[in-house]
Formats: sequence, C-alpha cells, structure tokens
Amino acid sequence: MSLEDDLGDWRRSHYSSELQGMDGREVTLMGYVSSIRDHGNIVFVMLTDKEGEVQIVFKKDGSSNLPEAESKVEPSPSSLSSLSPSPQSLQSSHSLFSKAKVLKEHSSIAVRGVVKSMKNAPKGIEIIPREMKILSLARSIPPFSIYSKSIPLDARLDIRAVDLRRHYLRAVFKIRHNVLKAIRAFLDEQGFIEVNTPKMISTASEGGAALFPIFYFDREAFLAQSPQLYKEQLTLAFEKVYEIAPIFRAEPSRTNRHLAEAISVDVEHAFVNYEDVMHILEGMVSHVIGYVKDKNREELDMLSMDLVKPTTPFPRYRYSELVDMLRREGARIEWGDDFTTEHLKALAGILKGYYFVVDWPASMRPFYTKVKGDGSYALSESFDLMYNDLEISSGSTRINRKDELIARLKMQGLKPESFTHHLIVFDYGMPPHAGFGLGLERFLMTITGIENIRDTTFYPRDIDRLVP
Amino acid sequence: MSLEDDLGDWRRSHYSSELQGMDGREVTLMGYVSSIRDHGNIVFVMLTDKEGEVQIVFKKDGSSNLPEAESKVEPSPSSLSSLSPSPQSLQSSHSLFSKAKVLKEHSSIAVRGVVKSMKNAPKGIEIIPREMKILSLARSIPPFSIYSKSIPLDARLDIRAVDLRRHYLRAVFKIRHNVLKAIRAFLDEQGFIEVNTPKMISTASEGGAALFPIFYFDREAFLAQSPQLYKEQLTLAFEKVYEIAPIFRAEPSRTNRHLAEAISVDVEHAFVNYEDVMHILEGMVSHVIGYVKDKNREELDMLSMDLVKPTTPFPRYRYSELVDMLRREGARIEWGDDFTTEHLKALAGILKGYYFVVDWPASMRPFYTKVKGDGSYALSESFDLMYNDLEISSGSTRINRKDELIARLKMQGLKPESFTHHLIVFDYGMPPHAGFGLGLERFLMTITGIENIRDTTFYPRDIDRLVP
Repeated sequence: MSLEDDLGDWRRSHYSSELQGMDGREVTLMGYVSSIRDHGNIVFVMLTDKEGEVQIVFKKDGSSNLPEAESKVEPSPSSLSSLSPSPQSLQSSHSLFSKAKVLKEHSSIAVRGVVKSMKNAPKGIEIIPREMKILSLARSIPPFSIYSKSIPLDARLDIRAVDLRRHYLRAVFKIRHNVLKAIRAFLDEQGFIEVNTPKMISTASEGGAALFPIFYFDREAFLAQSPQLYKEQLTLAFEKVYEIAPIFRAEPSRTNRHLAEAISVDVEHAFVNYEDVMHILEGMVSHVIGYVKDKNREELDMLSMDLVKPTTPFPRYRYSELVDMLRREGARIEWGDDFTTEHLKALAGILKGYYFVVDWPASMRPFYTKVKGDGSYALSESFDLMYNDLEISSGSTRINRKDELIARLKMQGLKPESFTHHLIVFDYGMPPHAGFGLGLERFLMTITGIENIRDTTFYPRDIDRLVP
Repeated sequence: MSLEDDLGDWRRSHYSSELQGMDGREVTLMGYVSSIRDHGNIVFVMLTDKEGEVQIVFKKDGSSNLPEAESKVEPSPSSLSSLSPSPQSLQSSHSLFSKAKVLKEHSSIAVRGVVKSMKNAPKGIEIIPREMKILSLARSIPPFSIYSKSIPLDARLDIRAVDLRRHYLRAVFKIRHNVLKAIRAFLDEQGFIEVNTPKMISTASEGGAALFPIFYFDREAFLAQSPQLYKEQLTLAFEKVYEIAPIFRAEPSRTNRHLAEAISVDVEHAFVNYEDVMHILEGMVSHVIGYVKDKNREELDMLSMDLVKPTTPFPRYRYSELVDMLRREGARIEWGDDFTTEHLKALAGILKGYYFVVDWPASMRPFYTKVKGDGSYALSESFDLMYNDLEISSGSTRINRKDELIARLKMQGLKPESFTHHLIVFDYGMPPHAGFGLGLERFLMTITGIENIRDTTFYPRDIDRLVP
C-alpha cells in the first residue's frame, strides 16, 4: 500500500533514448524495471521505456564520486560512481536505497536523477537517482525473461501483455506499425480511398467456408470472412478502395500460419484487370519493405533480419507451369489439384522470395473470379502472391456481369437467392474491376522472420485459444 | 450481350479533373453516366469518375464545328460544336451515336475523344468522342437522382452501393478518408503505436452492456463492445497505443446517433492522467479539422460547411456545474443522474461547439475509472467530449491497482472471476494510464453536418438493418 506512490504531477521529461550528451542534466524517466542486479550496497536497476533502456544506480550511502584515478584505471561493475546527492533532494539517500531494495522486475517506476556518462554502463550512460516513485510494484514473477527468445508459446500467451514486453516482440510490433503506415501511404498516393465494411453480415460472402454465427438481435447472422462483396460494390462509387480490418474464419486449423481472427489488407480497383492490381501489389510490397528497411534498422538488427528490398516485377509462374515443375521433381499432382504443404515446400526449394502464381484453374477459385476469355474458359484471371512456401495474398479480375455471376454461383453450388442484395448492384453499371486481399500477419512473417503467425498478432485467436 | 464491351487493353489516361488546358489532346476517360440529355440528333452525356465529371457530346452526323460567329454570339445548349471525326476512328460516327442512344444513367463507359474548351459546358470543357466502350449497361433506374439530397433513407440504403454515388455522400466519405489520415498522422507524430485487439472475446469488457453473442467453435463468446481492457493491457509493453477498428453494441436504439457497428478511435497512454489525454484529444480534433478544412475545400463546399478550426484548449465544465446550470434553466435533474436528450439540448442552447464535461460522479462511470483522490471519492477523473448536444468521446484516468479494480468490479455488481485474464496483468507493474475512445462516425457528423449517423458509415447496421 504505502510502498506505492501516485503519479501526482510527475511527468516524463525524456525517453531513455534521448540522454546522449546530457551529462549532468536532471531528467525524469518513467518505465518498468527490466532487470535488477543487487550487489548489497549498490543496486543496478535497468529501466526500460518505449524507446529503450537505461541503467539506474542506487547506492546505500549515496556516496560521492570515487577517486578519478580509480574509475579510470579499471572500472568494475561495483565501482560505479555517482554524483553527490542534491541537498534539496526530497528523499534521503537512505530512504531512496530502501525503495530500490523493494523493487521487483516489471515494477513501474519514475526516477528523477542526473545523467552521467559511464563507459562501462550499457550505451555509456547511467542515471544517478535523486528521487524515485514506485508507481506499481510487481507482485509476480513471469516464467520468462524479457531478454529470452525461446519460451513455450502457451506460457507466454497466458500473460500476453507481459510477454509483449520482450524485446524481440516489441521489435516485431514496431515494424508492424510501419508496415501499416507504409501500406496506407502507398495506397493514398495512388488515389485509393479508405473504407470500412460491415463485419456482421447476413450471408456467407464466398460460400462454403467456415463462418462464425452470431445472434443479431432476433436473427442469425455471421462474422464476415472477408470484405469481398462489399469492396467490389464500393468500386461503383469510389473506383479505388482499400480496407484494413479484421476478418474471421472458423477454420479448425492448428498450423503456424492460420488465425481465426486476422487483419486483412483489401484492395479493389475499377476499370483494371488482375495484371494491373498485381503491379500495384508488388509495388506496395516493395515500397513497404524499403520503408521498414530504412526506418526500423534497430528492430531488424534485434531480429537478425537482413532485409532486402525486392525488385519488381516479381517473377510470375502459371499454375500449369508449376504443376509441370512439380512433376519433373517427382511430385504426384494432377492439373486442378491445389498445392499441398509438401508441394509448396518443393516449389520453395526452387522459387525463392516473392513470386506470383497466375492463371489458376477457374474451378479452384471463388465464384466472383473472372474466367479467361481465351476459348478454353478453364483458366481464370487470378493470382496468388507467394513468399517461398507461404501464400500471402490472393487476387483476381472479378466478374462484372450479372448473368455470368449467377451462372458461376450455380456452378459452385451456391444459391443466387442468398446474394440478392449483392446481385442487385450489378443492375447499375458495375464497372470491370480487380483486386486482392493481403494477409497482414503473413506479410509481417516474411519481413520479421517470425515463424509462428501467433507472434505477429497481439492477442491470437485460434480453435484452442479465446483468452486473454 | 453484344451491347457491352470488354475492357481489353483500354486504360484511363486522365481523370475528368485533369483536362484543363488540354485542348485538342486525345484522352481516354472512364466512369459512369451520371446524366443524359437527349436532343434527338445530339446527346449530352455526363461522365462521372472518382475526381469529378465532364460532358461528352455525341452527334448523329459527327458534324464539324458550327460557324465560329454563331457559337460566339449566343451559344445555346443545342448549338455545341465538335471537332471533325478523326479519319482513323475505329467506330463510325453513326455506330458511335447509336451506342450513345443505348446508354442509360449509371452505365459504366470508357470514352476516347478529344478535349475541347466550351464556355457553356460544365467547367468549360467537353469531350468530342471518337470511340466508346460500354463496359456495363445499367438495367435498372434507381429511385433517386445522384444530385438530390432528400430521399427517404431506407430506399437509399437498400441499394447503398448506388446511393453512395450521390455527390454529397462521396464528399462525406472523401472527408472521412482525410479524417482517418489526419488522426493517424497526429498520433504517429506523438509516438503512439497502432495496435489491433481481438473482436471475439470471452467476457464482456465493461459488463452489463448489450453484447452480440457468437458461437466460437464449441464455446460461447461475444463481439467486443470496445477494446478497453486490451488497450489498457497494451500500455504495459507499448506505453502509447491506438486502435481504429469496429466496435459492436447490441443496443436496440433507433436514434439518429447510434449504430450497432461503428468505428472507434481508441487511445491509451501510460504515465499520464485524464487531463493529459484531454489535451491530446483536443489537439487531435483541432488538427483533424484544420487538415480537412485545408484538403477538402471542394467537399466542404458541396456540403455547405463553413468549417472553423477550433481553438484549444476547449472549454471544460464540471458535471456538477452543468447540473446547476440545468437547474437554473428550470430542468429537473438530481446530482448523479445522466443527462437526458432534453438536458443535452438545453445545454447546447448555452454551450456551443466542442467542450468537455469533466469530473463525473464515479457511480456513473465504468468500473475501470479512477476515483478522484480529493477525500470525497464520489467524483472520478473522467470526461466526455461534446459537440453541441452530441457526445463524441469519453475518457478517464484508469485504475492501475489490482485491489482497487477488484473493489470497483464488485461495487458495480460484476464478478472478478470473469476478469481473471485481465486482472492477472495488474500483478506485473501496471503503470498509471489514461485514455479515451472517440466515435469516428459521430466526429464525422460534427465535421460534415450530416444529421443521421447512418450516412457517415458505408453500410449501417442497426436493430432493423442487417443488409446489404
């Protein structure tokens, strides 16, 4: 109780990253205790804030500097010096030291003290504290260190908020922030307008796929598995639209690349075809990676990622070509079969980085996909964007003729009556259009090297996990 | 069937807004037919695209210019001139004119033609067509004109995609795009990190309120009515977070200011209190309005909005002050009562524009709201941001001590056991923090003057409407 202090009128004056060249200046820092080394009469506390970390040195006697010579000759961790305690200090050095002794890792603190250069301290700086507030004292010790990378996932996810303090995860999510920022900047520059479409819908948008049912007042409804039909409709009024929002898929998967709730980057564009949107997509991917490479050097270092901005155009392979390629490799696959995990692994042995797979059999694609007008009608104007063996995006030219759309609905065993509110839009001059959906988390996996998709989202949802 | 053309290799060369000073140049335009005036031997077609509109003039005889003198003396709508048809034209002027005769409003077309200055044409420019593709012929006529403002809402919402072609709605959503852009730019500049929290949750986040239940695989779950508890948790690792995402409220309201699905701008900030986040909020609102005023002049004109960038700080009124003010106005209200619609209208008669109502009775606020430490404990560190009589945002300092949070949960009749996964986070040094949620659609109402919240969202959801 009395161990903890209120924030009162204290406010942070600086982040830990802003202390270079501030020798002798008094600062107010806030953050949490990421590590403690207690040497009896001296306690080293690492304070971590949003921007980094800095060492605070608490001494029992609040003693003045050690003799210059000694600290120059061979400084050891326990021979760190401090400034004389300020006479106007509100806390005696004794009470300050007692407070430091109470600290546990993860406690939130505010420290007022003086910046001091110190060759042996992390980043060459330490803080000689004058006052400290314990804003929130940790009561428990998490079953992992924030410096560690290899902890069983479930133990981490159970206290995800604490888990997210780990340095490599903070790096992932700082990169994620810039990925979103760069995507929007790219699309805004090209004249796209941001939209939001409803997540509570009356009909399955692509049919067949696993949906989460909802009670919508007195009716049954579903969570949208994609904004597909809405974004298509919106090209009627806005021509070029994008939405970045959650999608919901009740797939009982337990793989490292599926989530029940994910963020989808959806783009739809009137008066163009799939080749045009492939061009936009590869431009966007390349732009984002260039931006992250430039802005997140520190985070990429932390993740040991040597990111290379991919050159465009990305290679394009026809589905049929890849089937032939797989057969030459000895794989068993028929034309019209989807690629299995093994097929994709085999392909990734040959095809590296980002590449498109184009011209899929029409029968393998959703009903709204335009069939190629090459006479055979067996192929569609469609593509997947791959990174090694990971599919990160899927797109196509869409059908913009009502009769054709109805025919394709029936062919795929769907009932046109269920799509009345969508089909009616095609009576009002639906323009030709094309688009794609990009899985944000999967894209982030390719940029950060994270192998389990759960660590590219804040609070993952899958068949086994609904909490926290 | 044969009336419609494929896009083929045609691509737009210019938008309608880019034609000034291009006299004599051939351009390829794409868009939809927003109006047709058929004078028998001459048909004026207005082509509307993403950026504006331009007139296309189809003449039966594809005739050359009228005598210079005549067009200069007193041009009338039917005496509009055209260039000579190009000899290399792919379509004879006759077949081109026949095609124009087939057009209906809302059809999507592509036109290749020559730009011609024409004083009497809208914006002083018309297009003399050489070729046209009918990309999608409208089959129905909507029960409203895109130029009209006063059409019954339900008739419009039933074909919302077409409704959104109306000019004033396109203006609203172009402004919306910039509102989002300016919000993110403001928060990014201040060092906030963008997050996404799960929309499928196991427990009601604020208790009591109306939730949509979901079947989550074999379990019951709910749609998140707010990211409140998650964004609080995320301050532990990221200190300053924001999320812009859908929220879901199963309130059976039929008012002009409630939606069952809305976009919420959520901000949470460690190491500060409610006064600090009020400062951020008013700065953000003012910044956004300044940005829109600068970037959306045309759209604001269309909406007859004379937007004024509000000066900060916004006025602040204590809840108690307003209760007294209402009583002086003769209203019946007890301390601790929420303001009714009538109360808010009465207040808006006195208080204009953006203002804060602060220091609400603790009993009226959610369990996570910090109580004021002024001895009485009856007031909370909380605020609403109002615009006239419309509440657009709500925020507070939050409780960061576990025992206090448990006590408040119980006091509000909620079971701490239901919040296990949230409460555990408070064992790890939860920092003091404060934040707010801003209703995007309501904020947009204050900027655009739109009176029904349904017109500030693309596809509104309420108790009566789940489609389209």
